[in-house]
Amino acid sequence: MKSKCMAGEELIGSLNKGVGALAQAATEEEIAELRWNLLKEDISLPAAILYRDRIEHNLRWMQRFIDGYGVRLAPHGKTTMAPKLFDMQLEGGAWGMTLATAPQVRVAYEHGIRRVLMANQLVGKQNMRIVAEAVANPEFEFYCLVDSAANVDRLGEYFLERGLRLKVLLELGVKGGRCGVRDEEQLGRVMQAVHHWRDAIDLCGVELYEGVLKDEDSIRAFLRAACHTTNWMVQERLVKRKPALISGAGSAWYDVVAEEFAAAGFGDAVEIVLRPGCYLTHDVGNYEVQQQRILKSNPIAREMRSGLVPALHIWAYVQSVPEPELAVVGMGKRDVAFDSGLPRAAMRYRPGSAGPSAAPAHWETTKLMDQHGYMRVAASDDVRVGDMIAFNISHPCLTFDKWRALAIVDEKYDVVGVVKTYF
Amino acid sequence: MKSKCMAGEELIGSLNKGVGALAQAATEEEIAELRWNLLKEDISLPAAILYRDRIEHNLRWMQRFIDGYGVRLAPHGKTTMAPKLFDMQLEGGAWGMTLATAPQVRVAYEHGIRRVLMANQLVGKQNMRIVAEAVANPEFEFYCLVDSAANVDRLGEYFLERGLRLKVLLELGVKGGRCGVRDEEQLGRVMQAVHHWRDAIDLCGVELYEGVLKDEDSIRAFLRAACHTTNWMVQERLVKRKPALISGAGSAWYDVVAEEFAAAGFGDAVEIVLRPGCYLTHDVGNYEVQQQRILKSNPIAREMRSGLVPALHIWAYVQSVPEPELAVVGMGKRDVAFDSGLPRAAMRYRPGSAGPSAAPAHWETTKLMDQHGYMRVAASDDVRVGDMIAFNISHPCLTFDKWRALAIVDEKYDVVGVVKTYF
Repeated sequence: MKSKCMAGEELIGSLNKGVGALAQAATEEEIAELRWNLLKEDISLPAAILYRDRIEHNLRWMQRFIDGYGVRLAPHGKTTMAPKLFDMQLEGGAWGMTLATAPQVRVAYEHGIRRVLMANQLVGKQNMRIVAEAVANPEFEFYCLVDSAANVDRLGEYFLERGLRLKVLLELGVKGGRCGVRDEEQLGRVMQAVHHWRDAIDLCGVELYEGVLKDEDSIRAFLRAACHTTNWMVQERLVKRKPALISGAGSAWYDVVAEEFAAAGFGDAVEIVLRPGCYLTHDVGNYEVQQQRILKSNPIAREMRSGLVPALHIWAYVQSVPEPELAVVGMGKRDVAFDSGLPRAAMRYRPGSAGPSAAPAHWETTKLMDQHGYMRVAASDDVRVGDMIAFNISHPCLTFDKWRALAIVDEKYDVVGVVKTYF
Repeated sequence: MKSKCMAGEELIGSLNKGVGALAQAATEEEIAELRWNLLKEDISLPAAILYRDRIEHNLRWMQRFIDGYGVRLAPHGKTTMAPKLFDMQLEGGAWGMTLATAPQVRVAYEHGIRRVLMANQLVGKQNMRIVAEAVANPEFEFYCLVDSAANVDRLGEYFLERGLRLKVLLELGVKGGRCGVRDEEQLGRVMQAVHHWRDAIDLCGVELYEGVLKDEDSIRAFLRAACHTTNWMVQERLVKRKPALISGAGSAWYDVVAEEFAAAGFGDAVEIVLRPGCYLTHDVGNYEVQQQRILKSNPIAREMRSGLVPALHIWAYVQSVPEPELAVVGMGKRDVAFDSGLPRAAMRYRPGSAGPSAAPAHWETTKLMDQHGYMRVAASDDVRVGDMIAFNISHPCLTFDKWRALAIVDEKYDVVGVVKTYF
């Protein structure tokens, strides 16, 4: 289903960081045939490395969790922006993909994705054009959010003029939060506008993002209010889609959202869509904290007897040990997220040795500069220039967007594929 | 001088964010012919916009400053990773380019750059391979840093085996700093290793990065010590290159480095190379603070009667005004640096109106999420969904690496080119 997308855009570039020797840009298949091995130093470090088995585990875990609640999964694709991973998620049972911006939607569309929830407002002439070009294809099912009459008016004008229809979800928000209507008056104005543009705009349900709230009680209250609004809208026949959609859930509180939405008693009238994105690679930061909470408190997660596992490492060389307790590694803010905790050494490997071993727990990343990381070690540790260190990360989204190509390895660290990103 | 680099890698992708309508990937020339205009909403926002006149002003300013001290400029290319901007810098008088990693060096080499200072250690098999492939070209002049005997040994083995010679600079460091030898004992060990591998390794001078220090007195002391070491090495005939090289200067303290190095009385024995990178676009954060200091204190800067100007904006739409004092804009951590101050609204424009005007000084970006920015406004401000806001940025490096394509506009906001990045 690829269209208009020239071949070069599908290739892994020979000028990318984090790959091995390429005489020229190559297809993913060509790269798998090169039989690079991470431990044989076939990859230029720093490199972002995805572990195939762990990715597949996480993918199955989340799908089972979602299925356990009888709801739908539309993973947030903004995390990875890797159509190859989108395909894995859809083949694993996902209902569709969630995305955040019009250019992201275009990437998914051009790669053959045919159901997208853009969990965001659609604003601006070019962004509307990008979406309209995809929506013109009747096989493409698309939803975006509205939270103001002003936005609905612009969308109505644009899509009506082109003889197209646009499916929208009403975004609900909370005071001090991000987007979304705050009260009944705002809601009423949006509904009026939707009614006014009924020849171009189809209201299909309700959306919220609970992640702007920080405590579980507030989140549950917000979710219940959203269920109430959804039920009211269905009863008042304000929703064109049957069943109506209700969508929520980032990567932290998807369990609570699943519980509350599933407990709302919607029956067949409402289809529930959850949108976590970070589960695919997981991390050792905020999402691991949330995962521990979920494994303890959630009956379905408990029953599965396993949890999400970190599936993405940044591998980097020690490039200098200028002080007994300081190892400088070749990994910086250009390579890894740093907004929600710094990367943590997980494994060490000395090229030529038997295999990687766990990094000492006392190794600590104390600072990142653009292209360097400071790692505090003990003076007695055997750390040398040229040692390879695998770092666990915090915040997958802001790590993925530092890489145009991420190698996928199997349990022997053989490179079995390369994932290309489109940020 | 391009080689091995397939055509597709030279094109602007049709799936990039921050560009206009492209039926397929296009060359830079094809894009200029499309006559996109930013204010006519021909570009999908958010977008990173470079102002041609301001870039050219900054380029001339820095070259004049550098020329004023009779020293050399090797702009740090890691900031932009845009070969088109490298070319402008070299055509403007730069001596060569500075880069931080082997893949960055390859990007420059493949785009025809023929003098590179890699202000970093070269570590690891693939990184050495990348550099060796370029160094095998006798027209390519390349330097990297060494600060340990262990690293020199690996480099010596690798390059000797291939019958190649590698030019290195000794990196000097400070206690609590990043890389670089800390004392005479470490220095001595590196010099011994360099001597041992004299058939493959050419010591060409001294390098430091003063930006790890925070106050001017410590920086001046560090610089003077480096001049002393350089003079000693030249006198002892330890340096193979004539003249020897001494290099320092990030984007904050280049004035102080120029002053100290120029005052060292090297004469013809030493060539001085400075490496600021952020001057090309400048910012309104830390670099603007430093610029104000320079304009006040530096005689050459004072004489020029002008300073660096911000030449890069992120343009974004207001997508929701859910509370009277909150405008949510479509710009987040995926689009702009946030590690050294948040972006600041500089201009506002309502599509269809006469032209942009200055944003009120009280508009403040209070928070960034992945794809959204929170802007605090006054309840009485006329802010609407669909308004375009131009944001000044802090920290150009971490803004550039969020974009694969940046549009260049002239004073009428006509798009006169697109710059492609290679991160």
